[in-house]
Amino acid sequence: VLAPRSSVFRGRSRTDRVALVHSEPHVVVLGAGFGGVAAAEVLAEAPVRTTLVDVRYYNTFQPLLYQVATGGLNAGDIAYPLRNLLRTRPRLDFRCARVEGVDFAGKTVLLGDGGTLPYDSLVVATGAATNFFGVPGATEHSRAIYTLDDALAVRAEMFGQLEKADAAALGGGTPAVVVVGGGPTGVETAGALAELHAMAFGKVYRSLDPAMSRVVLVERRDGLLAGFDPRLSRYAAAELRRRGVEVRLGLAVEEVGAGAVRLRDLATGTEQQLACGLVVWAAGVGAGDVVGSLPPTLVDGGRLRVEPTLLVAGLGDDFAVGDAAAAPGPDGRPLPQLAQPAIQGGRHAAAQILRALEGRPPLPFSYRDKGIMATIGRHAAVAEVRVPALGGRAVRLRGRTAWLAWLGLHIVALLGGRNRSAVLLNWAWRYVAWRRGPRVIVGG
Amino acid sequence: VLAPRSSVFRGRSRTDRVALVHSEPHVVVLGAGFGGVAAAEVLAEAPVRTTLVDVRYYNTFQPLLYQVATGGLNAGDIAYPLRNLLRTRPRLDFRCARVEGVDFAGKTVLLGDGGTLPYDSLVVATGAATNFFGVPGATEHSRAIYTLDDALAVRAEMFGQLEKADAAALGGGTPAVVVVGGGPTGVETAGALAELHAMAFGKVYRSLDPAMSRVVLVERRDGLLAGFDPRLSRYAAAELRRRGVEVRLGLAVEEVGAGAVRLRDLATGTEQQLACGLVVWAAGVGAGDVVGSLPPTLVDGGRLRVEPTLLVAGLGDDFAVGDAAAAPGPDGRPLPQLAQPAIQGGRHAAAQILRALEGRPPLPFSYRDKGIMATIGRHAAVAEVRVPALGGRAVRLRGRTAWLAWLGLHIVALLGGRNRSAVLLNWAWRYVAWRRGPRVIVGG
Repeated sequence: VLAPRSSVFRGRSRTDRVALVHSEPHVVVLGAGFGGVAAAEVLAEAPVRTTLVDVRYYNTFQPLLYQVATGGLNAGDIAYPLRNLLRTRPRLDFRCARVEGVDFAGKTVLLGDGGTLPYDSLVVATGAATNFFGVPGATEHSRAIYTLDDALAVRAEMFGQLEKADAAALGGGTPAVVVVGGGPTGVETAGALAELHAMAFGKVYRSLDPAMSRVVLVERRDGLLAGFDPRLSRYAAAELRRRGVEVRLGLAVEEVGAGAVRLRDLATGTEQQLACGLVVWAAGVGAGDVVGSLPPTLVDGGRLRVEPTLLVAGLGDDFAVGDAAAAPGPDGRPLPQLAQPAIQGGRHAAAQILRALEGRPPLPFSYRDKGIMATIGRHAAVAEVRVPALGGRAVRLRGRTAWLAWLGLHIVALLGGRNRSAVLLNWAWRYVAWRRGPRVIVGG
Repeated sequence: VLAPRSSVFRGRSRTDRVALVHSEPHVVVLGAGFGGVAAAEVLAEAPVRTTLVDVRYYNTFQPLLYQVATGGLNAGDIAYPLRNLLRTRPRLDFRCARVEGVDFAGKTVLLGDGGTLPYDSLVVATGAATNFFGVPGATEHSRAIYTLDDALAVRAEMFGQLEKADAAALGGGTPAVVVVGGGPTGVETAGALAELHAMAFGKVYRSLDPAMSRVVLVERRDGLLAGFDPRLSRYAAAELRRRGVEVRLGLAVEEVGAGAVRLRDLATGTEQQLACGLVVWAAGVGAGDVVGSLPPTLVDGGRLRVEPTLLVAGLGDDFAVGDAAAAPGPDGRPLPQLAQPAIQGGRHAAAQILRALEGRPPLPFSYRDKGIMATIGRHAAVAEVRVPALGGRAVRLRGRTAWLAWLGLHIVALLGGRNRSAVLLNWAWRYVAWRRGPRVIVGG
């Protein structure tokens, strides 16, 4: 056991009962998403006690949430019980509670169940929340897919509307589904919805005409998938259109109502109304609850201000990573709110805490861009993979190659062997049973 | 197409628009559980139009609900999308709606969405609901496991309580889980809970002592598993006790409160209080909503009075099957509310409707008892299998043989290849990973 001799012990409060009982410093990690779990895994191997805190008792693999929402996967296939992490990590503990706030001066986390967690060092990895950008009606009348509950709510709403449309139809049309936001989440959701409609309309929904399927993808910019090479963006739009998605670019959502969205053409300024049954909001993420509860002086654009080391600006022992932190990327702008910056940030913060224990100063975080990818549907995806052997140059993939790469990468990245096997089984089943109609996963 | 010439066409109302459009008689099946799906599958092969009606858009494999409640399976593993039935059955349609009532005289089903379904012949297979037997507080403070939502609510409640107990413990005990009812559902639930505690306490729930695990199974009678051979009942009780379940016989639940149940010893009359965190109600099923809405003259003990043909007493074209019907068994008492009577009843009712189309009178229903089984846990189950080759004599199995038989039978009985594969995968995973701690399925 290392003797406490670093800055992580300064300012420890008198109420720090737990830390007084144990001789090892106590690190608290807030949030068990990509960043928090990555930090906890590194810390658990070191001579510190680590407590991982999350309001849910499971980790959610967010990149596949849209497949739960569209009936392709079980909720349980992408949820990993956090206590499984404890089996082989005797120094790691888990606390299932909501975070009410952090007393940075007193080095104590305040929990929603009335408890407190004194800490020597802290990692804030509480993620973000859906950003509705203040669009009137968006909170009430559109659905985001940021949590498992969100995904299951979209699934229930969508299948409920299909049932209603089928019962009412006898030749009538189906209400349109509008997906707002042409980033990876919007593209993947729209593609999956179009596939579901193509497989199910006229087959298991007898009254619904496949020609009447309307999946509309609305994007403010003049292209999909910002950040991708323009050729890949154009390919994604063309593939989505070929699969029946109406890709509508250069349109801003002005208002979301019950049963309609109001759109404004950003080039001409003209407005139009679009009747719809379901609006899926995939336009971006903003401040999460926890960050919102922290002192405003620490917050910038809904994310915690951090120094290049990922230390929260002005604090000595408190790190912030992932969606919760406004960590500057190589171009000076905050890093994108994706899995890789969170994972790398979590590992970096954990490593700096361990350096501090050895009396060494923290190093700056350097994000290694591994690339970006998005899937469109069966046999179609786009990917830009940064290859270290080519000096970090991006290799661009699309079509079947990119799709297989996407499948493999997502299987590997899932937590837990059971979940990996279950996702593989469900994908394989759907792939083989393709021509026999939809094989959706429902229930609960 | 058969010409309409039988009793199913008498009394067809003028509002029967759909039937006027089509030349085939219209059969409506209310409820898509074991009985309704069995009836629909037979009817779909015949020259009739069949509409299956259910408030949910999926069928639930109820015998495995307790495994969803205890984290062994996904909700989606035991839920089968009803529209999948339509893919290969052009004459079958599905309507997702709540049944408000039946106008037997006007031969019309009234739906919750305001619609009506005129029919020539009807099969009521709407199942039952949990029977709390009027025990004070049972509705509010105990949880049944009759639907998927019930199972997911029990799972959320249970894991939530384990999290709280772990956070609060530091040496304290855990709240007891009380399972009310020593039938197959109660035995299986108690066994699964004891296994979960044994695997998880002290391992992933660090503060919880396996010796403090309390799973209490309360049964009014002086033995478990009424209907089984007494030797199998005793074996089940002994196996449950060996696995840590407190099996308490001859006790009636007098009242369920928040955090406690009041029990009365039926032999001595003395009362006792049992503190607990969760009460799972597995004591029986009673009248369902639909049956409750029907004319009371047709109802007996929460189930529809039926003639030996399964025709609803006094009606000519309306059948009732499964939990919804009080069909007399060989001993004169109503058949047990299990899958087999429902499946056989559904097939029988369908066959009688087809006989009526050919102008032949209905035959009486004769239930063929295939046996009963219940699982206790890993390598332990009990089964009484009626073997036709032995003149219907019961072969009694217990232990590993019965357990393997139970596993095989439940895999075969599941609807849908994907669900079968997924359940098999999850069971195999849990079996192999046994010593490595709990592999629970959570999320959503």
